[in-house]
Amino acid sequence: MYKEIAAVLENSVNELTKEGPVSLCSHNNPTKLPSLEKIKDCITLLQSVIFPGYFGQQIDNVSTLHFHIGVKLEKVYTLLQEQIYRTLLLYEKEVTEEHASDITLRFIESVSEIRRVLMTDVEAVYLNDPAAKSKRDVIFCYPAILALTHYRIAHRLLTLGVPLIPRIISELAHSATGIDIHPGAMIGESFSIDHGTGVVIGETCIIGRNVRLYQGVTLGAKCFTLDERGYPVDTPRHPILEDNVTVYSNTSILGRITIGHDSIIGGNVWLTQDVAPYSKIVQHKAVRNQSV
Amino acid sequence: MYKEIAAVLENSVNELTKEGPVSLCSHNNPTKLPSLEKIKDCITLLQSVIFPGYFGQQIDNVSTLHFHIGVKLEKVYTLLQEQIYRTLLLYEKEVTEEHASDITLRFIESVSEIRRVLMTDVEAVYLNDPAAKSKRDVIFCYPAILALTHYRIAHRLLTLGVPLIPRIISELAHSATGIDIHPGAMIGESFSIDHGTGVVIGETCIIGRNVRLYQGVTLGAKCFTLDERGYPVDTPRHPILEDNVTVYSNTSILGRITIGHDSIIGGNVWLTQDVAPYSKIVQHKAVRNQSV
Amino acid sequence: MYKEIAAVLENSVNELTKEGPVSLCSHNNPTKLPSLEKIKDCITLLQSVIFPGYFGQQIDNVSTLHFHIGVKLEKVYTLLQEQIYRTLLLYEKEVTEEHASDITLRFIESVSEIRRVLMTDVEAVYLNDPAAKSKRDVIFCYPAILALTHYRIAHRLLTLGVPLIPRIISELAHSATGIDIHPGAMIGESFSIDHGTGVVIGETCIIGRNVRLYQGVTLGAKCFTLDERGYPVDTPRHPILEDNVTVYSNTSILGRITIGHDSIIGGNVWLTQDVAPYSKIVQHKAVRNQSV
Amino acid sequence: MYKEIAAVLENSVNELTKEGPVSLCSHNNPTKLPSLEKIKDCITLLQSVIFPGYFGQQIDNVSTLHFHIGVKLEKVYTLLQEQIYRTLLLYEKEVTEEHASDITLRFIESVSEIRRVLMTDVEAVYLNDPAAKSKRDVIFCYPAILALTHYRIAHRLLTLGVPLIPRIISELAHSATGIDIHPGAMIGESFSIDHGTGVVIGETCIIGRNVRLYQGVTLGAKCFTLDERGYPVDTPRHPILEDNVTVYSNTSILGRITIGHDSIIGGNVWLTQDVAPYSKIVQHKAVRNQSV
Amino acid sequence: MYKEIAAVLENSVNELTKEGPVSLCSHNNPTKLPSLEKIKDCITLLQSVIFPGYFGQQIDNVSTLHFHIGVKLEKVYTLLQEQIYRTLLLYEKEVTEEHASDITLRFIESVSEIRRVLMTDVEAVYLNDPAAKSKRDVIFCYPAILALTHYRIAHRLLTLGVPLIPRIISELAHSATGIDIHPGAMIGESFSIDHGTGVVIGETCIIGRNVRLYQGVTLGAKCFTLDERGYPVDTPRHPILEDNVTVYSNTSILGRITIGHDSIIGGNVWLTQDVAPYSKIVQHKAVRNQSV
Amino acid sequence: MYKEIAAVLENSVNELTKEGPVSLCSHNNPTKLPSLEKIKDCITLLQSVIFPGYFGQQIDNVSTLHFHIGVKLEKVYTLLQEQIYRTLLLYEKEVTEEHASDITLRFIESVSEIRRVLMTDVEAVYLNDPAAKSKRDVIFCYPAILALTHYRIAHRLLTLGVPLIPRIISELAHSATGIDIHPGAMIGESFSIDHGTGVVIGETCIIGRNVRLYQGVTLGAKCFTLDERGYPVDTPRHPILEDNVTVYSNTSILGRITIGHDSIIGGNVWLTQDVAPYSKIVQHKAVRNQSV
Repeated sequence: MYKEIAAVLENSVNELTKEGPVSLCSHNNPTKLPSLEKIKDCITLLQSVIFPGYFGQQIDNVSTLHFHIGVKLEKVYTLLQEQIYRTLLLYEKEVTEEHASDITLRFIESVSEIRRVLMTDVEAVYLNDPAAKSKRDVIFCYPAILALTHYRIAHRLLTLGVPLIPRIISELAHSATGIDIHPGAMIGESFSIDHGTGVVIGETCIIGRNVRLYQGVTLGAKCFTLDERGYPVDTPRHPILEDNVTVYSNTSILGRITIGHDSIIGGNVWLTQDVAPYSKIVQHKAVRNQSV
Repeated sequence: MYKEIAAVLENSVNELTKEGPVSLCSHNNPTKLPSLEKIKDCITLLQSVIFPGYFGQQIDNVSTLHFHIGVKLEKVYTLLQEQIYRTLLLYEKEVTEEHASDITLRFIESVSEIRRVLMTDVEAVYLNDPAAKSKRDVIFCYPAILALTHYRIAHRLLTLGVPLIPRIISELAHSATGIDIHPGAMIGESFSIDHGTGVVIGETCIIGRNVRLYQGVTLGAKCFTLDERGYPVDTPRHPILEDNVTVYSNTSILGRITIGHDSIIGGNVWLTQDVAPYSKIVQHKAVRNQSV
Repeated sequence: MYKEIAAVLENSVNELTKEGPVSLCSHNNPTKLPSLEKIKDCITLLQSVIFPGYFGQQIDNVSTLHFHIGVKLEKVYTLLQEQIYRTLLLYEKEVTEEHASDITLRFIESVSEIRRVLMTDVEAVYLNDPAAKSKRDVIFCYPAILALTHYRIAHRLLTLGVPLIPRIISELAHSATGIDIHPGAMIGESFSIDHGTGVVIGETCIIGRNVRLYQGVTLGAKCFTLDERGYPVDTPRHPILEDNVTVYSNTSILGRITIGHDSIIGGNVWLTQDVAPYSKIVQHKAVRNQSV
Repeated sequence: MYKEIAAVLENSVNELTKEGPVSLCSHNNPTKLPSLEKIKDCITLLQSVIFPGYFGQQIDNVSTLHFHIGVKLEKVYTLLQEQIYRTLLLYEKEVTEEHASDITLRFIESVSEIRRVLMTDVEAVYLNDPAAKSKRDVIFCYPAILALTHYRIAHRLLTLGVPLIPRIISELAHSATGIDIHPGAMIGESFSIDHGTGVVIGETCIIGRNVRLYQGVTLGAKCFTLDERGYPVDTPRHPILEDNVTVYSNTSILGRITIGHDSIIGGNVWLTQDVAPYSKIVQHKAVRNQSV
Repeated sequence: MYKEIAAVLENSVNELTKEGPVSLCSHNNPTKLPSLEKIKDCITLLQSVIFPGYFGQQIDNVSTLHFHIGVKLEKVYTLLQEQIYRTLLLYEKEVTEEHASDITLRFIESVSEIRRVLMTDVEAVYLNDPAAKSKRDVIFCYPAILALTHYRIAHRLLTLGVPLIPRIISELAHSATGIDIHPGAMIGESFSIDHGTGVVIGETCIIGRNVRLYQGVTLGAKCFTLDERGYPVDTPRHPILEDNVTVYSNTSILGRITIGHDSIIGGNVWLTQDVAPYSKIVQHKAVRNQSV
Repeated sequence: MYKEIAAVLENSVNELTKEGPVSLCSHNNPTKLPSLEKIKDCITLLQSVIFPGYFGQQIDNVSTLHFHIGVKLEKVYTLLQEQIYRTLLLYEKEVTEEHASDITLRFIESVSEIRRVLMTDVEAVYLNDPAAKSKRDVIFCYPAILALTHYRIAHRLLTLGVPLIPRIISELAHSATGIDIHPGAMIGESFSIDHGTGVVIGETCIIGRNVRLYQGVTLGAKCFTLDERGYPVDTPRHPILEDNVTVYSNTSILGRITIGHDSIIGGNVWLTQDVAPYSKIVQHKAVRNQSV
C-alpha cells in the first residue's frame, strides 16, 4: 500500500509540476506574487486604526492610544509597501521600492480623511434604519460599514495607481457581506446600504451624496463593446446616481444612464433609461390569486 | 527615507488620535467595548454544545461527554458574562456584574430548549429538500441550520434584555450564509430555508410553525414613520406569516400584512397586501421570445 | 454566587447530555464524525497545489516546486483518506481503510485534470469581464473561480462515491461567495459566473460548455414529487443548459426544461418552459413614473 | 542564482534521503515513532490535573473542577495511549492497541497516588528551605517539584512496562531544571532537593524516605562491567541512601554502596564506600592563602 | 472498552476532585492564582523594551521606537498589575487594585534604571571574556545577561513588596541558564558570570561592584537555625563579597562570611571563613598518577 | 488613575527611547539585527532533516521523504541566508546578499556530513551508557546528542566565516542541556558526554576521536593575557585531549595542556599540567567520619 501511495503521489507531483503555473507568474520575478493573507492583515489593522476599540484588541487607556495607532500604522506601512511593490512588479518592468514606499505613504496620509468620510456613512446608515439603536451598533455590526471601509480603502489605493490589490480588497468585503462594490466606482459621502446581500455596484458607477440602496440592487452594465480582438472594452457603462437617490430592494439599474437627484426607485424594478430629478419609479405587478 | 516614513507616521498618528474615537465610547468606562472575537468564540462553543461531534473537536467517548459539555458551558458563561456586562455598561449607568451574571445563567438554562427547537428545524429542512440525504447532512452543511442556530441564540439573549450582542450574532450568520434574520423577529418551530442567500427577515416579523422560505425572500418593511425629530420610529412594520406558509424564491413581502395559514406564495412576487388562508399567489410574467 | 453558577452549569450539563446527540451518530463508531476543519484544510491545500503562489505560502524558487507540491499532496492524502473513511462508516457497515485509501488515490490522480478544466474557466471569466485586467487577477480575486474550484473538487469526489463531504465542500464555497452549486450538477468547461452572489445551481442541472451566468440566477426545481412515505423523491428536476448559453442577473429557470444552445436569457426572467436554440428571451416590464 | 540554489538543494536532498534514517525506524511500522511534542503535552496536562490552578488555565469555580479534570484526563488518555502503542511497536512484534490502552488506564488510576506522594515532597521542600514562604511558593517555583513530578510520572510508567517514554520524560525535567533523575531510580516519600542544578541520580539508586540533596550531588556508578560482546551490563551499580539522609552540595557518591539512615554527608565529598547509620562525613580541605 | 475507559476516568476524576487542591488556594478568592504564563510574557516584553531589536520583533525604524515601547510598556502594566493584585490577595486580606496598580507604576518607572545597570553588566562581561567579540554578542547570547535581566527585575519587584512573583521570575532564569540567583540577594553594578551553569547565589548575599563569578560557584548558607516550631529561620546566612572580588569555577563559599575587596578565590575551593582584602585563596590538590 | 498611568507610561517611554539602544546597532542598517527566533527555527528544521521522524512531524511514508526534506532544506536556506546576511552587515561594510547566499549553500552541502559524524556520536553514547537501551533512545532523549547537533552545526558555520550566529546556536544548546560547548572548539568523531549538566568546553579546545566526558567537566582556561588596552587576548588557552581520553565527573582541566591519548582522568580532579599517554589520574580525598 505504501508503495502505491508513493507512486501515485510521485506521478501527480510530476503532472502538476510540469504544467503551466509558471506562465501565470510575472516576468520580473517569477515567484513573488502578492499575498492574500497579508493584504487581509492590512485591512484588519486599518479597521482597528479607523475604529479603535471596535476592531482589534480593547483599548485600556485613551491617553495611550497614540502608541497603539503608531505601532499599527507602521505595520500597515511595512506590509502594504511590500505588497504594492510585488504587485507593481507584475505589471511594470522598471519599479523601485522607493516608488512603492511613496505610494504607501500617500495612502497612510489619507487614512484620517477615509475615516472622516466613513463617519458620514455611519451617520447615514444610523438615520435610515429604525432597527439601529445607536451609531455604535452601526459600526459594530452593519455589513454596509464593513463593505464601505473596504471600498474606501480600495478606491484610494486605485487612485494612487495600485493595480490588483484594490480588487482583492473589494472581494474580501464581497465574501464577508455579499455586497460587491468595484473599487473603481465613485461614491459620495453619507452613503448607506440596508441588509446588502446581493448588491452589485459596477466599475464605472458615479454615485452622489446621501444615496441609499437596499439589498439585491444591481447598478450594472447593460452590455459591453468588444474591441477588434474580441476582448471587452472598458468604457463608462454603469449608471450615474445623483444626490439623494434611494433605490429599493432587488432593483436592477443597467447601462450608462442617469438617475436624477432626489429620485426614488421602487423595489424589483428593471431600469435601463434615464430618470429625471425628483422622479418616483415603481413597478406594476400583476398578481394572480388562486385557491390552493 | 526612514526620516520621511517616520514623519508621515507621526503626523498620521496625530491626526487619527486627536479626532473623535472617544466620543463613540461609553460614558461609564470609556474604553471597554464588547469584543467581536469573544462573541464569536461563544457561538462556536455553543454550536459544539448543541451539536456535539459536528462542531468542535471529535468525541472519543460518549460516556465522557458531560465533562466536555461542562468545560464548554463554563467557558461560555465566563466569556458571555463579561461581554454582557460590558455591553450593559454602554447603555445604562447602574449595572452590576451580578446582573450580567444572572442574565448569563438564565441564558445557559435555556440552551437545551434552544437545542430542542433547532432539532425541529433540522427535521423540517430534511423533509423539504430531496437533496438532503439524512438529518446528519442537514446539521453538517445546511446554511439554514447555521443561520437558525445563531438566530435562536440571539433571540433568546434579546428577550433576556441584552442589547447589541444579539445583533452582532445575527450579523455573524448573515456574513456566513447570506441569510439576514433580525434577532427581534419571532419564528416558530420547524422553520426551514432552502439555499438561503439573500433572505431578509425584518425585526418585527412574526412567523408561525412549519413555515418554509426559499432563497432571496424578503420579509421587509414597506416604509417607516419618522418621529418629530426626523428619526425613524421602531413600530411593527414587517409581515406576519401564519403556520404552514411557503414562500418561493426572490419574492418580497413588505409591510405589516398577514399571510394566512397554509398559503403558498410563488417566486418573484412583490406582495404588499394581506393574503387569506389557503391562498396560492403566483406572478404572471410576460415573456418575449426573440430570435438572436 | 459561585455555588449558583455551579448549580446551573451542572443542571444544564445533565439536560444537554441526556438528550439525543448520540442518536445522530453513526452505528459503526458512535463518535468519529468527519471534521469540518480538516475538510477545509484539504481544500486550502488543494488550492495551493492547483494555483501555486496564489494561495498558500509564496514560492521562492520554481525549480523546487515539486518538493512543495509533494508535501502538500501527501498531506491531502492523509487528511482526506481519514475523512472519507469516517464518512463511509456513517453510511455503510462494511468499510475498509483500504477502500477509503483507494478512493483518495483516485481523487489525487485527477487533480491535474481538475486544474486543466479550471484554467478553461479562468480563461472564460477573463474573456467575459471587461473589468478583469489579466488572468492573474481572475485567479486571485474572482469568486467564480473560488466557487468552481470547490465545485470541481466536490463533483469529482461525488463521482468517486464519497457521501456528505462533497456537500460540505460546496457549502464552504457558498458561504465564501454566495454562489451555491450542488456537487451533483454537471458543468462543462469554460464556465463563467459574474459577481455571483445569489446564484443557485441545483443537484440535477446539466450545463454545457461555455455557459455564462450573472448574479442572482437560479437554476432550480419547479416542484418535487413525494414518495409513498411523503418524502421528496430525488429525480431529475433542474434545467439543462446547452452550450454557449448566457443567463443575465436575477433570472430563475425552473424545472427539467432545456435551454437550447447559443440562447440568451435576459435579466429578471421567470422561465419554466423549454427554449429553442439561438433564442433570445427578455422580460417586458411595465414601469410607472410618478412625480414625488 | 535560483538555478544554483535549486541544484544544491536537489543534491543535498538526494544525499540526505539515500542514507540510513530508515534503518533507525521500527520493524513493525517503519515510520510512526513516538512524538516528543505529544509526550510533552501529556506532562503539561498532568501537571494541571495534579496541581490545578497552578499550571494550565486558571480555575474559575472549584465546584466545576471535575469537568476540567475529566476533559484533561481524557486527553491524557488519548495522547498517552497512542504514544505507548507506538513505542511498544518499536520493541515488540505482537502488540495490540488494547494492551496500550490497558497500560494507560492503569497509569491514570495511579495519578491520585502520585499526587499524594508529591504533596509529601512539597511538604519536605517547604520544611527544609528557610527561603520558602509557603507550600504554594514551593509548588509554583521550586525546580525540585517540577523534577519530581516528572520523575514520579516516569517511574510509574516504567513499572507498568513502558519503554523509552519514561526516559524522554526525565530528560524534559533535566532540560528544565538541570536535575537528572533516571526513571528507574526508586525514591521514597518526602524527598527534597535544594537548587538542584547538576544533581544526577542513577538508574539503580534506592533512596529512602525523607532524604535531602543539594545542588551538584551525583549518585552515580563507579564503573560498569562489560558483557562478552563488549557492551556495558545493566546491573545494580548506584548507591542506596537510607531514610533521613542529607547530602550537601557537589558531593559525589559512587557505586553500589549504602549510606546508613540519619547520616549527613558534607559538601564536595567524593565517597565510594559504605557509611554507617548516624554518620557525619565531611571533607578536610587544605586552603592556601596567598597575598595577591 | 469504551465503557471501561469511561469508568476509569470517572473514578480518577472523583479521586482527584475530592482531595485537597482547594486548601492550597487563597482565602480571599479561592481560585485566581497568578499565572506562570503571563509572568513569562511580562519578562519577554521587558526584555524587548530593555534591549529593543535584540529580543521581540525587529525594529524597522528607530524614529518610531517610542510607539513600540509605549505599546509594550502598557501591556507590561496590564499583565503585571493583574498578577501582582492576584498575588497580594494570596497573602493579605485587605488589598485594593489601586495598590497593585501603584506598585506596578513604581516598577515601570524604574525600568530605565534597570537598563542602565544592566549595561554595566554587559560591559563587565565583555571585558572579562576574550571569547566575547562585541557587547552586541554579549547581549544576544550570554546567559549571564539573561540571568541578570531576570534578577534585576525580580529584585526590584521584591523591594516594592511583591511576594512570590520575584521568585517565579528567578526560577525562569534558573531553568534557562542554570544560574540560580535568589531575588533577595543584593548585587552591585558591573557584575559578571562566565558560563554560569550551577551558580547559586543565596537570599541574603551582599555582592559589591565589579564582582566576577565562574560556573559552579555556590554562595550558600552553611547551616540554618530552626525556630521553636522546628521551622528554619530566615536570617542573614549567606556570604558578603566586597568590590572587585573574583571567584573561580566550582568553588563554594558558605555562611555569613566576608570576602574582602580585590580578593581572588581559586577554583574548587570550599570556604567557610572570612578572607581579608587583596587575598588570593587557592586549593592544594594531591593528585596521584597511575599507569593504566 | 487612568491619567496617572498614562503619565508614567509616557515618561518611561521617553526615558527608554532617548538612551542608547541605537548605539548598539549596526552602522550599515541601524535596525535589522538577526533574530533569535528564526535561528531557533533553523535548528529545529535541521534536527528534523538530520533525524527525520525523531524531530518534527511524523513520517507517513519513507518513499516520500525527499519531498519533506526538500521543503525543509529550502526553508533552512531562506531563513539562514537572511540571518547570515544581517549578521555580516553588523561586522562588515561591504556585504552582498550573494555572499550570504553562497555561505548558506556551502553550509547546506555539508549537512549530510554533519549527520554522518553525529551518527558516530550516537554510537559512542550508546556504547558508553549501560542505561541506553538502543541507539533510538540515544537520539530521542540524550542531551549529549542535542548539544552535539547544535555544536556541529555551529562549528561548521564558524568555519564558513559566520560571526555571532554560531555562538547563539551554542547558547541554545547550553540553555536546553546545561552543556556549554564553544563553537570554536574542535571535536573529533565518536564523542560522548554522560548526563552533561555543567560541562564547559572552551573556545580553543582540541579534542580527538572517541573522547568521553561526564557531567560537570570543565575544559577551561587557566588565565588569559590582556593586550596593551587591557582587553583579554584570544589565544590558544584551553586543553588538548588526544584520542580515547575519558574524564570523569566534576573534574576541571585548565590551560593549554595536553592530555595524552588513552588516558583516564578521575572525578573531582583539578588538573593544570600535561598528562602522558595511557595515564590514569585520580584524586586522593581525605574524608573525616564523625558521629552525629
